[in-house]
Amino acid sequence: MSTSAMQHQTSDKPAAGGCGEQMHALMRELFPLHRSQTGAGVRQSLQLLQRVVPLEVNEVESGTPVFGWTVPDEWTIRDAWIKDAQGRRLVDYQQSNLHVVGTSQGIRETMTFAELRPHLHSLPEHPEWIPYRTNHFQEGWGFCLSDSQLDQLRQAGPDAEYEVCIDAEMQPGSLSYGELLLPGETDEQVLVSTHICHPSLANDNLSGIVVAAYLAAQLQQAPRRLSYRFLFLPATIGPIAWLALNRDVIPHIHHGLVLACLGDSGPVTYKRSRRSRQSRAAVDQAVELVLRDRGTPHEIREFSPTGYDERQYCSPGFDLPVGRLTRTPNGEFAEYHTSADNLEFVQPECLADSLDCCLEIIGALEANVTYQNTHPWCEPPLGSAGLYDGYGACDPKRAALQEAVQWVLNFSDRRHSLLDIAQRSSLPLADLHEAAKRLVACELIQQSDQIQP
Amino acid sequence: MSTSAMQHQTSDKPAAGGCGEQMHALMRELFPLHRSQTGAGVRQSLQLLQRVVPLEVNEVESGTPVFGWTVPDEWTIRDAWIKDAQGRRLVDYQQSNLHVVGTSQGIRETMTFAELRPHLHSLPEHPEWIPYRTNHFQEGWGFCLSDSQLDQLRQAGPDAEYEVCIDAEMQPGSLSYGELLLPGETDEQVLVSTHICHPSLANDNLSGIVVAAYLAAQLQQAPRRLSYRFLFLPATIGPIAWLALNRDVIPHIHHGLVLACLGDSGPVTYKRSRRSRQSRAAVDQAVELVLRDRGTPHEIREFSPTGYDERQYCSPGFDLPVGRLTRTPNGEFAEYHTSADNLEFVQPECLADSLDCCLEIIGALEANVTYQNTHPWCEPPLGSAGLYDGYGACDPKRAALQEAVQWVLNFSDRRHSLLDIAQRSSLPLADLHEAAKRLVACELIQQSDQIQP
Amino acid sequence: MSTSAMQHQTSDKPAAGGCGEQMHALMRELFPLHRSQTGAGVRQSLQLLQRVVPLEVNEVESGTPVFGWTVPDEWTIRDAWIKDAQGRRLVDYQQSNLHVVGTSQGIRETMTFAELRPHLHSLPEHPEWIPYRTNHFQEGWGFCLSDSQLDQLRQAGPDAEYEVCIDAEMQPGSLSYGELLLPGETDEQVLVSTHICHPSLANDNLSGIVVAAYLAAQLQQAPRRLSYRFLFLPATIGPIAWLALNRDVIPHIHHGLVLACLGDSGPVTYKRSRRSRQSRAAVDQAVELVLRDRGTPHEIREFSPTGYDERQYCSPGFDLPVGRLTRTPNGEFAEYHTSADNLEFVQPECLADSLDCCLEIIGALEANVTYQNTHPWCEPPLGSAGLYDGYGACDPKRAALQEAVQWVLNFSDRRHSLLDIAQRSSLPLADLHEAAKRLVACELIQQSDQIQP
Repeated sequence: MSTSAMQHQTSDKPAAGGCGEQMHALMRELFPLHRSQTGAGVRQSLQLLQRVVPLEVNEVESGTPVFGWTVPDEWTIRDAWIKDAQGRRLVDYQQSNLHVVGTSQGIRETMTFAELRPHLHSLPEHPEWIPYRTNHFQEGWGFCLSDSQLDQLRQAGPDAEYEVCIDAEMQPGSLSYGELLLPGETDEQVLVSTHICHPSLANDNLSGIVVAAYLAAQLQQAPRRLSYRFLFLPATIGPIAWLALNRDVIPHIHHGLVLACLGDSGPVTYKRSRRSRQSRAAVDQAVELVLRDRGTPHEIREFSPTGYDERQYCSPGFDLPVGRLTRTPNGEFAEYHTSADNLEFVQPECLADSLDCCLEIIGALEANVTYQNTHPWCEPPLGSAGLYDGYGACDPKRAALQEAVQWVLNFSDRRHSLLDIAQRSSLPLADLHEAAKRLVACELIQQSDQIQP
Repeated sequence: MSTSAMQHQTSDKPAAGGCGEQMHALMRELFPLHRSQTGAGVRQSLQLLQRVVPLEVNEVESGTPVFGWTVPDEWTIRDAWIKDAQGRRLVDYQQSNLHVVGTSQGIRETMTFAELRPHLHSLPEHPEWIPYRTNHFQEGWGFCLSDSQLDQLRQAGPDAEYEVCIDAEMQPGSLSYGELLLPGETDEQVLVSTHICHPSLANDNLSGIVVAAYLAAQLQQAPRRLSYRFLFLPATIGPIAWLALNRDVIPHIHHGLVLACLGDSGPVTYKRSRRSRQSRAAVDQAVELVLRDRGTPHEIREFSPTGYDERQYCSPGFDLPVGRLTRTPNGEFAEYHTSADNLEFVQPECLADSLDCCLEIIGALEANVTYQNTHPWCEPPLGSAGLYDGYGACDPKRAALQEAVQWVLNFSDRRHSLLDIAQRSSLPLADLHEAAKRLVACELIQQSDQIQP
Repeated sequence: MSTSAMQHQTSDKPAAGGCGEQMHALMRELFPLHRSQTGAGVRQSLQLLQRVVPLEVNEVESGTPVFGWTVPDEWTIRDAWIKDAQGRRLVDYQQSNLHVVGTSQGIRETMTFAELRPHLHSLPEHPEWIPYRTNHFQEGWGFCLSDSQLDQLRQAGPDAEYEVCIDAEMQPGSLSYGELLLPGETDEQVLVSTHICHPSLANDNLSGIVVAAYLAAQLQQAPRRLSYRFLFLPATIGPIAWLALNRDVIPHIHHGLVLACLGDSGPVTYKRSRRSRQSRAAVDQAVELVLRDRGTPHEIREFSPTGYDERQYCSPGFDLPVGRLTRTPNGEFAEYHTSADNLEFVQPECLADSLDCCLEIIGALEANVTYQNTHPWCEPPLGSAGLYDGYGACDPKRAALQEAVQWVLNFSDRRHSLLDIAQRSSLPLADLHEAAKRLVACELIQQSDQIQP
């Protein structure tokens, strides 16, 4: 076993520590930028992230064909408002970039409320919240506003006139995304992907962005058995373009996580990769065992082809072992896709807990080696190796290590990885990692290829 | 995918509609006929069924050896009675054909009650019901009567004399059965088998007979991807003879159902085929998913080698994927094999519901195609194909279709049939059928052979 | 099928009967002997057992290398005590051999209580019990005593002086174990292993020793399809030495049981062999079905590489299908490894029940044949073979046999052993054995190799 994998097995792995406040501070800087699929807001955001990790910013030209799709033109928006006859801005893009439906066409017209009404979106059930709407890949324009604002307009009657302006345009440009490869001892890559296309929404998905950035920063400084590829890209079209243009990289991706919605106070929720039914994906095992060992409330869900960018990584032509880690998943919290998904909705300690969870998952993957027992006939004399006490009282920590040693020895038969042994034994990963480390040191086990069980 | 399979996926499939009353009317005509394993009653019944479907009536000569069995002689019965000294018919075959033990030998003798008693069968726990007994393949004779009738005889004392007559005989003839093949686009055959050997018993099994007949009638008028083979035959010896004499047909049977006891008000009960543990049988999947989607109470049972004619189809030499559909199974309702299993016990609406269920199962098998995604790398741009709405409100029906589209696309990997996708997704078959139809129309999926998962 | 297997299927198999009292009497003779890993106590015990079964006593010389271990020197102990200044034996080996820590070095010294204290072991939570301690493979010496005894010493203060004597020595000799092979019609061997190294402890493991001895005695007198190999050996080093020195025998071991802790009144507890997850081990099936059919409380546990000598048999290099049968397992009863595990703790009727259970397990293995249906197409005419009654009342015993006949016939497809059929059918083994016996007699089934399902 390599030195770095050994180190990951023990307690010298990085920990989120006080990163919660730092992540929240970064999020506050990112919050006001108007991220869309493409354009200036995305580029400014990626630049900000470069302060934390040395992301490479890549550009894919508008019009590039990618798997039947076409990379869209860039959308540029400068201002937008609805003014009443007195010239007052009743709805004002300067107040919130959620007020404009994403990728709206430009418009400047005076029209009656009756004409304007079909272009207005509100949330009657939450009268003070502005909804988030977008019409990617479609023509048209629209405004989002709180239902209270809409009420004001309504009360002025259907014939009241308003000046409506969206100073925006679609023009050829490029799709921008951030990428970072952290090479390890092997070229077995772990993909970490997060979407960067949403405007001023904190949990969906500034939370995913800052956790991914800090995860990358921590891994950059740690010894690495595996390699790590981080992607910060617009949802759907981003991974589609990346997959289309990086087909040579795909065979190197052995594990993957889509990160999103990681700042709310809900329980951590893991959605398995598509492979979970046919065969075991190590990432599924790793996440599930980490969540089991943490002992905090969490939820494991089966794969479904709906959701976030796992839809693309897990499309049948690729079928990559990529799961998705969130706290409360998209669409299942009331604030989702509204102005209430703001900086207060997201807690520093929840971000830190999410980052810790990611680090533990990475630790489990780093340490997930398949071993071969070098003395597979009967137990070796563990007493002389200092791994077994005689009959009688021994302290619980020694006893736990001793049990872990017995499990690792017995199932290091080339058919069971350390994660397999953790599943079968129900013992904590930490104990098994320690046991494996000691047994490697005694040369009682050695790293091996895995043969199919 | 073929045109007819396409049609089955939508709502133009036949429905039982008002057939409940028609089936019950047919049953009333069939009820008085004295069906046994062989003979006139069976032939008259098959002739009556020919009014509904163009059954071919086949005859297998008495004495024909079939898998170690011998096709029996024909049993003809003309009359039977027990008369007291005054010549009164205390037990009278003209009142109910259940009064004579099936395939009794002929007899005409005067004997005491003490001599007669061993030949009398009643049901003390249901004193007004006449039991149904038969002694196929054995010698002897007997009468069945209500326990009240038996009481009368008992009260006259052991020495009272009775004239006993069974005017019956066994003579070489033939075993008759009905068969109908409805060819479809492929020679993949669905076997539908029902037993026709019981006398005046309504649920067991006039119900199976009339449902099978009306199912055949409806399928005759529908487009068919699959072929259908209907068999109306005496229990046990019927399928044994048919299997022995039609071995060339057997490889064409890909799915099958034994129908019986379909007119009572109990929940639909499905007994899986013998194959359910080793591999998935499509008929097991189809029935279970149809019952799941119906949302009405039902029961799924494991295969066992006891029961009805599935015993022969699922014998180890054949191991055909044949399940059994009943409402309350044989032996589990008090009226089973008694005169209380009469025309009142069977409800037109239950017959109609059973027929509907059969039609839905057939619909699921007709639509059970394995597809191949023609664009398996990432999702195709469904918005432009009209199969995906932008973010924001969309009506629940559209949303359900969109989800079904995503499931069908993702799992059309040649390893999952549409029934497999229905199991894994938990989505209704109807939505998946609609999604598949639309995706075929867009050429995003195409029919494929299935490769083993 | 062979004659002896036939006989095992029926009720002529041996039964524990009144053996409970005999086993308890033998245990009373064995109790006072001081068994350790090696030495005189073990040899005397094996001699006593030779009165019941013709064990061969084998010796392995001290110093023999076995899989990285070394066969230890023999430990001889003659006397041991702690005397106060008045010469009174406060702790006296003559009262209980538990008073000396196993394999203690010899010592004769006068020392203060303060000096003596680190060498004393008691159980404060059970002040009247003496614990059992050993320091196999380690240097040092010690005494075990009740906490009341310790209190006496404590009260005399830290400076009170005691004369301490352990008249013991380690010297080259040999490790003794008992072995018995009972050959059967085939060389498919069943290993029965029990540990013999503990001193005056009744449940752990005189109970395992006497049950194994009486099991061997009963099997010696019975017809045997399988062969049986009984091992009575010291824990850990015993099976390690035996496995190292008998590698040619190992391929013949097809089933195995480690027996221990079989005399307490707890429920029978079975720990599965290591193979239970990858494939079915017949011994696991047999034990679980026997326990199911017994209908008494019991527990089935997954394999773990901790416990008794199954650790060695199930080490990955051997991976033998060896399970472990106990009542309350080691470490789970308060009396475990204390002087309270005495002759009163163990009940004759519990020993008898354990022996019965073992005999039933052996019966299930003896009868576990895979059959081939000689008439696999449809059911054969069972009525003419006297195995099927016509419709109507038949007694429950006949009905159970008839159902068992149908199951055996249907699943005698070379893929299902009789134990497989018992699992799938949920029918009692006894009925299936009887059915198989009758079907063999009718030549409707015949013994077959098993092909993998």
